[in-house]
Amino acid sequence: MHNALAEKFGIQYPIFAFTPSEHVAAAVSRAGGLGVLGCVRFNDPEELEATLTWMDENTDGKPYGVDIVMPAKVPTEGAAVDLDKLIPAEHRAFVDRTLDELGVPPLSDDVEHATGVLGWLHSVARAQVDVALKHRPALIANALGSPPKDIIDEAHAHGVPVAALAGAVGHALSHVANGVDIVIAQGYEAGGHTGEIASMVLVPEIVDAVGDSATVLAAGGIGSGRQIAAALSLGASGVWMGSYWLTAAEYKLGSASGEGPSAIQRALLDASSSDTVRSRIYSGKPARLLKTKWTEAWSKPGAPDALPMPLQNLLVAEAHQRIVASENPEVVAMPAGQIVGRMNEIRPVADSMADLVAEFEATVARLNKLK
Amino acid sequence: MHNALAEKFGIQYPIFAFTPSEHVAAAVSRAGGLGVLGCVRFNDPEELEATLTWMDENTDGKPYGVDIVMPAKVPTEGAAVDLDKLIPAEHRAFVDRTLDELGVPPLSDDVEHATGVLGWLHSVARAQVDVALKHRPALIANALGSPPKDIIDEAHAHGVPVAALAGAVGHALSHVANGVDIVIAQGYEAGGHTGEIASMVLVPEIVDAVGDSATVLAAGGIGSGRQIAAALSLGASGVWMGSYWLTAAEYKLGSASGEGPSAIQRALLDASSSDTVRSRIYSGKPARLLKTKWTEAWSKPGAPDALPMPLQNLLVAEAHQRIVASENPEVVAMPAGQIVGRMNEIRPVADSMADLVAEFEATVARLNKLK
Repeated sequence: MHNALAEKFGIQYPIFAFTPSEHVAAAVSRAGGLGVLGCVRFNDPEELEATLTWMDENTDGKPYGVDIVMPAKVPTEGAAVDLDKLIPAEHRAFVDRTLDELGVPPLSDDVEHATGVLGWLHSVARAQVDVALKHRPALIANALGSPPKDIIDEAHAHGVPVAALAGAVGHALSHVANGVDIVIAQGYEAGGHTGEIASMVLVPEIVDAVGDSATVLAAGGIGSGRQIAAALSLGASGVWMGSYWLTAAEYKLGSASGEGPSAIQRALLDASSSDTVRSRIYSGKPARLLKTKWTEAWSKPGAPDALPMPLQNLLVAEAHQRIVASENPEVVAMPAGQIVGRMNEIRPVADSMADLVAEFEATVARLNKLK
Repeated sequence: MHNALAEKFGIQYPIFAFTPSEHVAAAVSRAGGLGVLGCVRFNDPEELEATLTWMDENTDGKPYGVDIVMPAKVPTEGAAVDLDKLIPAEHRAFVDRTLDELGVPPLSDDVEHATGVLGWLHSVARAQVDVALKHRPALIANALGSPPKDIIDEAHAHGVPVAALAGAVGHALSHVANGVDIVIAQGYEAGGHTGEIASMVLVPEIVDAVGDSATVLAAGGIGSGRQIAAALSLGASGVWMGSYWLTAAEYKLGSASGEGPSAIQRALLDASSSDTVRSRIYSGKPARLLKTKWTEAWSKPGAPDALPMPLQNLLVAEAHQRIVASENPEVVAMPAGQIVGRMNEIRPVADSMADLVAEFEATVARLNKLK
């Protein structure tokens, strides 16, 4: 699976793994891919600083990347406390009522209440970039548009290539015009923020549109070596996998008071590819989530429309914290792609990587017999 | 691209082309694929009889197939005139008002008014099967579920394999249990009746689920050799392409009073992959259509919900006829998949087939260098 892109990054396989877990990111880098740490959860730059120091020390000198979130359209700036005032009372009442109906208890008094994700505010994301560039990122990616020009320039000045996700050809061309080096063509089937065009159609469209002016990774629906072979057939130079790592053994995802996987992980393990939904209720922008009693409550008649970014996540932040604490797999708030149907086991990253590579090679050998 | 499936059907390439045009179907068969004639438009068995006789005479002795539509859940039976009484006045008024607003003129007095598609009534579809089996079909496919057991048995008694479309693993397993030989895994990106799981995820899921008990074709989003290589990477034994043939030079699609392509064809040529929508307004079941002023009118606030099958198509049949006659590319009612973004030229089938095969071979050669 080694190719020019892998060569350029000094990695063995062109497998880029997006994950909010530094443990998973480091394990992917150690196993020959490129672990890309999602930074949106770091409201505090010092916490990111400590985590990247940990990454430096736990990747055997192998490269890793960071993913920030800078929406192309700048959302309302402000501290959480001011933004909170913009949330309608009707929305708060709906959230409270729904949690009651779903049997989700309030937080206990000794827990600090979540304030919500602010990492997609440009002010916060810029601080994250500054922190990251003091370490040795091999890539800075942006999940919601091109980063601002000065950030692209700063990354390039540090010799760091910039990637951006695209759900349509227009986004991809705009990224290239803005100086982005790697376009991540992300299909409808992907988890998290996503568009409406499926990978099978989107990837070759973007490959043809950007030509030699950028490298293209395929994202969405990838969790096996056959799917990597399909992505490379479509013309991508590598793959960007996200949801797939949510069931990595290295990922301490969610809350588990007992032994074994957390409620979120059990929900992921049990879900089929039909058990996701594309909805604005997580962040205010369309994102694919695990379909649960929580997401279904928002699509019932009488439920309010989701608020715009960043208000929606501020609205639901404490609700999500309560949901995690309740440890009920039927009430989970979690971005996940349609590949969730193939995530049926908690597995170490190294085992998954070995399987991806072996199945890719078997697939190419099979195709080659047809020629 | 020749493989065991192609060998079994006595064709050169495992490219199955669904099309309502006998001219396109015959051209695909002559070019080494398997043309599959969509029969749903034949309300009159004698018309189908004549068309299949034409197919027999124009395929150079090469195999072809037929596609019937038998919904797994039997819709209300009845003659068009009786079913008409079940359509609410509110729906008729909405259709009339919308056509007025879109500037679609009434039919001229000398035109016979369309009665709507009845081919998805089991009574009509059974007559179509009887007609088909008097000819030499190499395949009988069903777009909306498994055919009834007696029809599968009848086909098998004639040595004809049966195919059925599946949008989820559950459908595929049900087809296999019912005796279906070929499962067509049809992704979200496909035109016409379609589910919500994208091909990248659906195809390998269905391949793994059915194992050796059925052959799997991939459908949805396929219009290039790279996409065929991707489908075969995912484990499919062949591809089922539908939308792609709508811009075949052999297809007299729509009405053109002047020279050049019809309004429908111009709309298809101009559309990007973003210009489709999944909606129930065509038949009563979710189907992907070209996004036009007609489809958008149905999604505006105040528009009625689509009626169940078969009533919805009876409701809109004359509207569709008026829309075709109006020759306005902005007001078109046409099923089409996301691959429409790659359909930018009216081309003879033989040219398209040659390109598909050449690009497939180049793709496999490219992948093989990575191994």
